[in-house]
Amino acid sequence: MRLIDIIRERRSVRAYKDQPVPEDALARILEAARLAPSARNRQQWKFVVVRDPEKRRKLAEAAGSQEFVAEAPVLIVAVALDPERVMTCGLPTYTVDLSIALTHIILAAWDEGLGTCWTGSFQPEGVKRVLGIPDKYKVVTVMPLGYAADSPQPKERKPLEEIVCYEEFSE
Amino acid sequence: MRLIDIIRERRSVRAYKDQPVPEDALARILEAARLAPSARNRQQWKFVVVRDPEKRRKLAEAAGSQEFVAEAPVLIVAVALDPERVMTCGLPTYTVDLSIALTHIILAAWDEGLGTCWTGSFQPEGVKRVLGIPDKYKVVTVMPLGYAADSPQPKERKPLEEIVCYEEFSE
Repeated sequence: MRLIDIIRERRSVRAYKDQPVPEDALARILEAARLAPSARNRQQWKFVVVRDPEKRRKLAEAAGSQEFVAEAPVLIVAVALDPERVMTCGLPTYTVDLSIALTHIILAAWDEGLGTCWTGSFQPEGVKRVLGIPDKYKVVTVMPLGYAADSPQPKERKPLEEIVCYEEFSE
Repeated sequence: MRLIDIIRERRSVRAYKDQPVPEDALARILEAARLAPSARNRQQWKFVVVRDPEKRRKLAEAAGSQEFVAEAPVLIVAVALDPERVMTCGLPTYTVDLSIALTHIILAAWDEGLGTCWTGSFQPEGVKRVLGIPDKYKVVTVMPLGYAADSPQPKERKPLEEIVCYEEFSE
């Protein structure tokens, strides 16, 4: 699909069909993450692909028992391997790096007809325990991946004038 | 362009031609940011578009005098309006929200034949002073936008086996 159509149509999916994700689609989605840029091209990330139903159930529990997390046939757990690094401007490097790679995943998934949803309401310790992730790393998101079972809602966004200003800041 | 071609070809641009960015291309790029998802759809972001050469020079100074920052005909300064909010998992919400929207900008720019580069080595106080950004907000990046004047370098990335694992974490 054309980028602009993906950006226009994409939405967060919070109900998934009981239908497996094709291997080749998953491979292309992960490839999109692999190609993402990162600070100094360090690529300090790892993506854990989870299909096992029991593990998915446990991850959903760690994610505040959000049902749709267990429902999705695949969970991609994104892990930052160098969460201490900070940019000169003060931003933690890992959140930017991982967010860019995960946006590639979100858009590439939609391109394959698959939905995702960024989740942030999980207990990192619980997720680490289920997948054996060392303490020193940081879990960035537990992202469900699968075919949407919910209906699209209209996309409500602020108008451009409200989010863009020119030459200087204005509220 | 197709998403996958954009993702494959895109690279960070660190030298820009002295050639203006067409208005309609800029409008489409900003629209791509506008459509980005954000936590609870709060869209707590502002994008300051800077074309004024004097302001760009001052911003480049605040960005450690990186020449290519002043060179680009447009700078997009991304500002987080709610930088204190933290997700349950511990991640600062603004870095994820803004990084997703900026990835839309990066990809949409490439789709228009334009280059960008995420910069993180700037002094936020300096950038705020130049653009009149209130202290309580956070400058996420100063992103140059323009036609590339440098040559593409080969994209070096870790192989997929190194960044993906299955069912459990492995180093």
